[in-house]
Amino acid sequence: MSNIEQRLNELGIALPPAPAPAANYVPYVRSGNLIFVAGQVCFGADGKLAERHKGKLGGGVSDEMGREAARICALNVIAQVKAALDGDLNKVVRCVRLGGFINTTPDYAAIPQIMNGASDLMVEIFGEAGKHARSTVGVAELPMDCAVEVEAIFEVA
Amino acid sequence: MSNIEQRLNELGIALPPAPAPAANYVPYVRSGNLIFVAGQVCFGADGKLAERHKGKLGGGVSDEMGREAARICALNVIAQVKAALDGDLNKVVRCVRLGGFINTTPDYAAIPQIMNGASDLMVEIFGEAGKHARSTVGVAELPMDCAVEVEAIFEVA
Amino acid sequence: MSNIEQRLNELGIALPPAPAPAANYVPYVRSGNLIFVAGQVCFGADGKLAERHKGKLGGGVSDEMGREAARICALNVIAQVKAALDGDLNKVVRCVRLGGFINTTPDYAAIPQIMNGASDLMVEIFGEAGKHARSTVGVAELPMDCAVEVEAIFEVA
Repeated sequence: MSNIEQRLNELGIALPPAPAPAANYVPYVRSGNLIFVAGQVCFGADGKLAERHKGKLGGGVSDEMGREAARICALNVIAQVKAALDGDLNKVVRCVRLGGFINTTPDYAAIPQIMNGASDLMVEIFGEAGKHARSTVGVAELPMDCAVEVEAIFEVA
Repeated sequence: MSNIEQRLNELGIALPPAPAPAANYVPYVRSGNLIFVAGQVCFGADGKLAERHKGKLGGGVSDEMGREAARICALNVIAQVKAALDGDLNKVVRCVRLGGFINTTPDYAAIPQIMNGASDLMVEIFGEAGKHARSTVGVAELPMDCAVEVEAIFEVA
Repeated sequence: MSNIEQRLNELGIALPPAPAPAANYVPYVRSGNLIFVAGQVCFGADGKLAERHKGKLGGGVSDEMGREAARICALNVIAQVKAALDGDLNKVVRCVRLGGFINTTPDYAAIPQIMNGASDLMVEIFGEAGKHARSTVGVAELPMDCAVEVEAIFEVA
């Protein structure tokens, strides 16, 4: 068992199946040693969007549910990276960048804390290699009214 | 005639002139084998923003006009890539990533369908090489109140 | 004294200390010859967010203060790049891309002019190497209600 799979086991984390794209694009593209992961939304491992992860921070979605939604996006990102690496997450060299889009009302400014739901997971799983550059913004709306969307760039071996 | 130019002919697509930047930046930068294309808005081949491509999805812009605006952005992206490649689109290895920004009201969630106006065009023209990773978000406002803005990363030979 | 440091002197620009991240991420990641700089907000050299750089364009923030906020973000970006290069800004080959996020009301469309506060600074300091691809969008909200956030990709030697 690889180190990262062992780490996932220790953390009690089961990766979801890599989600199919919502439209006419692919979930990831590799160029050289970089994998560009398409924006992943907060659909759960059952392929469904839970009501509690739908809507806006500052609106119907609580801070706790927002962080949970960000974590789900990050799990979906990692599932895509695993698929891109033919199942071998030990080939991850670095999580280079996360882009976090938070579905917010125009007055909800605590978005970094929400995005930590994604960032914390990367560091829990990959350690130093999980420490990434990050941009987080509050947007007017997201696909299917999801609370959070996360895109990523990974460097791989 | 190159394959891609032939394909454009078959599709009846005339690329617009590569638009000049709206401000103090350049339309693309090449770094290694990657071309980073600046965000392209939905100004038409005549260099003008049509009234029907101005405003918000969920507001005055219909779904159909939104998809059309996204397609125009993608045409402008390809025109920039062609300029970056000194006119030879056959050097495109892959459309790596599209970033789609849709000008929306806070309750308009059908944004992936709008962005397909851009994504479909990439696949029509470049085939497998046109299949890209993608992030789409609904934003509060875009330059000149454009309905859509699309940025891109291409891998080239 | 390096050329870029000399240029900063000529321009009377003192770079701020590289800001610490607001949450669980790192301010930059290098992958190959690219440095990905995390989104930098408009906190000043004193580590504080001035009231005049807080809020929305089209709301309480004037155009002039918006441009100033964008310039501050760009100064913070350059401070991060300097840190990533162990202090030697002469290793900058190119500012490849800037991503500009402007905190706007839904009807404030003059965002390219605001983002020029960041773009102008890059060209003032780095000359031709400072000319970048750029995407600018108006977002619903930014961390700590900052008026502007700027992220960047640099190519370095």
